[in-house]
Amino acid sequence: MSTKDGPQASRRGPYAKSAERRRAILTAAHAVFAAHGYRGGSLQDVANHAGMSQTSLLHYFPSKSDLLLAVLNWRDSITGDGTAPPDPEESLADAVLRQARFNEDVPGVLELYTVLCGEAVTEGHPGRDYFTERFDRLRRSYARQLAQLAGEGRLRPGVDPDTAAASLIALWDGIQTQWLLAPGSVDMAGCLRAYLDLVLLPEEDQERASAGAPPLAPLG
Amino acid sequence: MSTKDGPQASRRGPYAKSAERRRAILTAAHAVFAAHGYRGGSLQDVANHAGMSQTSLLHYFPSKSDLLLAVLNWRDSITGDGTAPPDPEESLADAVLRQARFNEDVPGVLELYTVLCGEAVTEGHPGRDYFTERFDRLRRSYARQLAQLAGEGRLRPGVDPDTAAASLIALWDGIQTQWLLAPGSVDMAGCLRAYLDLVLLPEEDQERASAGAPPLAPLG
Repeated sequence: MSTKDGPQASRRGPYAKSAERRRAILTAAHAVFAAHGYRGGSLQDVANHAGMSQTSLLHYFPSKSDLLLAVLNWRDSITGDGTAPPDPEESLADAVLRQARFNEDVPGVLELYTVLCGEAVTEGHPGRDYFTERFDRLRRSYARQLAQLAGEGRLRPGVDPDTAAASLIALWDGIQTQWLLAPGSVDMAGCLRAYLDLVLLPEEDQERASAGAPPLAPLG
Repeated sequence: MSTKDGPQASRRGPYAKSAERRRAILTAAHAVFAAHGYRGGSLQDVANHAGMSQTSLLHYFPSKSDLLLAVLNWRDSITGDGTAPPDPEESLADAVLRQARFNEDVPGVLELYTVLCGEAVTEGHPGRDYFTERFDRLRRSYARQLAQLAGEGRLRPGVDPDTAAASLIALWDGIQTQWLLAPGSVDMAGCLRAYLDLVLLPEEDQERASAGAPPLAPLG
């Protein structure tokens, strides 16, 4: 690290330093909230972890709930928030499986998500709106993609895009929890792939579907 | 309530009183842990909620983790722990849907489950072993039932009983979380039913399946 004047030093001026400290706080808050939850982790724990006073921390994030929302948004920037428009070159199944495999390399991020999402179902939790809106947005996004596949004859007849969208997200969250508890016994990507194999038709079956393959008969 | 001597008074002797106090503590701990999580809720909160001193509480449950495990076991006694042998008169699908509809009437119990299960993925959480063992037991129980259905030609060809067991549990947990956040937008029983419709064959399709219907083709 240079301490001389010049372009490098100017990049480490007050703005760069502020950005660095914000990042240090977010890293600390991520670790503390993932280990103890939002309610169990204190601002003092986060300040200690970041190596600064609580007063300094509050200069960057005026309240604990501001810090929580910043951590959640930071998480989205790592794993994606599900709102990016689908890559036209990549199928829905490929995108889901690519993300699921990526997630296996960031267990700490999944842990944070699982702990905070669990807490957020309680009344008055400051992350409740974030998670409610996130699920709403994801359900709409996947339902839109599945409805488009239905229009192309790629959805198994009888599958409802809205139900399949909510179910895909649910299965994904639930299997992450099982995987975090027993990574050697649970195949996250395998379960997601098996679900997508049930819901989507392979390309060669398109014509059969559009020619009127029998819909799924409901169970008695 | 009689205060006279006699059979009724003897039932309210020291043992009955002890059972009543344990139940009062469990009810209080259920409320506190559901609202604040295990790490966020203190023994003092539970004692206050139960209207007794923390010292009295510790007489019944020697530690906070003992209390947590007692609450989790109590929850199982309300919603079932998934280990009861399946009723031979009731199909797997009917049992799942009956339980899912029952759960809609006990949102507080689902909330406790969701908060504690989320927390339990963290290292050193005293509920971690409980949830790890619970998922392991449930996966084995559903896999066994699904394998039996496969033997009867009731499983869609290509569906793996172990994968479907883990996926059913995952979908169920995940859809509960979405439902707790937005009960008006999410149909828990509908999503479970749709999944079971995908995995199981209606009885009239049994012969087709055993006669060699084409297995699910994997996605490209």
